[in-house]
Amino acid sequence: METTHTTSAIGVDLGATKIAAGLVSNAGAILARRKTGTGSGDGPEAVADRLAGLVSELIQQAQQEDLPRPTGLGVGVAGLIDHDAGVVISSPNAGWTQMPLRDLVAARVPLTPVVVDNDGNCAAIGETWMGAAAGCRHVVCLTLGTGVGGGLVLDGRIYRGAHGVGAEVGHLVVAADGELCSCGGRGCLEAYASGTAVARMARSRLESEPGTKSTLRGIRSDELGAEEVTEAAAAGDTLAREVLAEAGRMLGCGLTSLVHLLEPELVVVSGGLAEAGDMILAPARAELRRRAFPASVQHVKVLPAKLGNDAGLVGAAALVLANTD
Amino acid sequence: METTHTTSAIGVDLGATKIAAGLVSNAGAILARRKTGTGSGDGPEAVADRLAGLVSELIQQAQQEDLPRPTGLGVGVAGLIDHDAGVVISSPNAGWTQMPLRDLVAARVPLTPVVVDNDGNCAAIGETWMGAAAGCRHVVCLTLGTGVGGGLVLDGRIYRGAHGVGAEVGHLVVAADGELCSCGGRGCLEAYASGTAVARMARSRLESEPGTKSTLRGIRSDELGAEEVTEAAAAGDTLAREVLAEAGRMLGCGLTSLVHLLEPELVVVSGGLAEAGDMILAPARAELRRRAFPASVQHVKVLPAKLGNDAGLVGAAALVLANTD
Repeated sequence: METTHTTSAIGVDLGATKIAAGLVSNAGAILARRKTGTGSGDGPEAVADRLAGLVSELIQQAQQEDLPRPTGLGVGVAGLIDHDAGVVISSPNAGWTQMPLRDLVAARVPLTPVVVDNDGNCAAIGETWMGAAAGCRHVVCLTLGTGVGGGLVLDGRIYRGAHGVGAEVGHLVVAADGELCSCGGRGCLEAYASGTAVARMARSRLESEPGTKSTLRGIRSDELGAEEVTEAAAAGDTLAREVLAEAGRMLGCGLTSLVHLLEPELVVVSGGLAEAGDMILAPARAELRRRAFPASVQHVKVLPAKLGNDAGLVGAAALVLANTD
Repeated sequence: METTHTTSAIGVDLGATKIAAGLVSNAGAILARRKTGTGSGDGPEAVADRLAGLVSELIQQAQQEDLPRPTGLGVGVAGLIDHDAGVVISSPNAGWTQMPLRDLVAARVPLTPVVVDNDGNCAAIGETWMGAAAGCRHVVCLTLGTGVGGGLVLDGRIYRGAHGVGAEVGHLVVAADGELCSCGGRGCLEAYASGTAVARMARSRLESEPGTKSTLRGIRSDELGAEEVTEAAAAGDTLAREVLAEAGRMLGCGLTSLVHLLEPELVVVSGGLAEAGDMILAPARAELRRRAFPASVQHVKVLPAKLGNDAGLVGAAALVLANTD
């Protein structure tokens, strides 16, 4: 197929700290990229200006390099999103509430349509379109990052809930009287299987077990994050491995709820913490298989995402390019 | 509309101890009923014979009384059901595994089609067709009985999972290291919000708190069930009320997971334990509202079922009468 015969869309992953944009072809290839800081402290209009700036650069590059002209813009955002209205209901990390993102962006870019969705939904759409779940009709995607996000593909369609705010996988209650979660609740999956939770668990064990040796003791407490725990575990540190195993066990409890309820073909796990690979996924799978009904779990695979950090961006473009509803 | 213009189907609720069958009109009315013991100990063929006997009696009554002639037969069964194959994969209470129920029944009745489904799915279909959830497109149904069953209506269609064994709401994990569940796991919703669990909690408190007064002390331990706890609570017994409130609190944790994940318009609660009404539903709603995101929970109602014990039977008939797929 010649380049002139393909179409494209621009997909944007709008995070609390950075904006990543890409020109994505209808075959799922990222043909060009741009990135900048979000600067959410400057207010919604400034963020929309920056986002529109990246879009403008990508349109220009497409023209100059004879890449397929984008037919629309999809934006994925962390937080509760009203997909139909294109409004960010709340995005705690960026500090946005009731932000009319779609209208702010649409007024600044020469593309139609402009579509806004939750980043977890975008990742699920991306992975189902071109990633680990390609061809599957029942998929749960989990993003283990600072928090835990998710997206559901049920009977071949993205599932958003009655008013578009479902698929909040991170706030499945896995321990009724457990750890405090950032949402104010207790015992949410996010309070155990997020990067934040892994760092907290590691710091807590280092403090409460002064006799236990760990290479993590060489890291200042305020610089100890999930990445450091994962690195130490990969290098064989026992405490770091045990922390990841515990996060994996609790992830397995969440997976059990998801499998009993939705019986997907596939669970796709992405996000920074997923880079711990089998150090977190193997205990998660073991806990799932220990708990779930054999008939419910026998066909279910738990796999790492294929699109990595690009899942949200590719999925945002797919909001325009693929038939996601 | 004249009787001759309406159609009907036979719906059967096949339980571990009894079989209830009804001739259900296309307007959802139960025009005639039959009931008998299941006698599951006599084996699948004997059960199919008994079921076919009730069907035969209902067909005869329809002829004699000029009731609309049934066009098919729907059967709801507790357990894991392969809906497409019409096979009971496992039904622990009745002791069935890999039982080809549809074929056994179809060979014995003069009705086509014969459709088999999980009883929780049937109750959800019944309540959405003619009950508390009529007109709703996103519904979670919970049946709080000996165990906890459920059914999901998502985007207006019954959701069964990739291989038909989803919607096992009773085995959401709400307390990772909690009470042992009948499934062998720990901390499932069923281990807290079922009739069995309520009876266990009451017995446990009576034993461990010999100084606490309760009218339940007048009941032999092996005769103390959820019904007795509900009756005592209704009469003002504090311990009984506290047990129901704790079951309600844990139910609220399960509802939080369901609302965050599926964001339904409505949660319908049926089953024997639901007869405790607001003694269990009020604490469940309070816990849900305390935990769930305001945007997720603001539109969600938690209501008792309207069809009561008939939900499964009416829903089984709806498998044939209504467009449930």
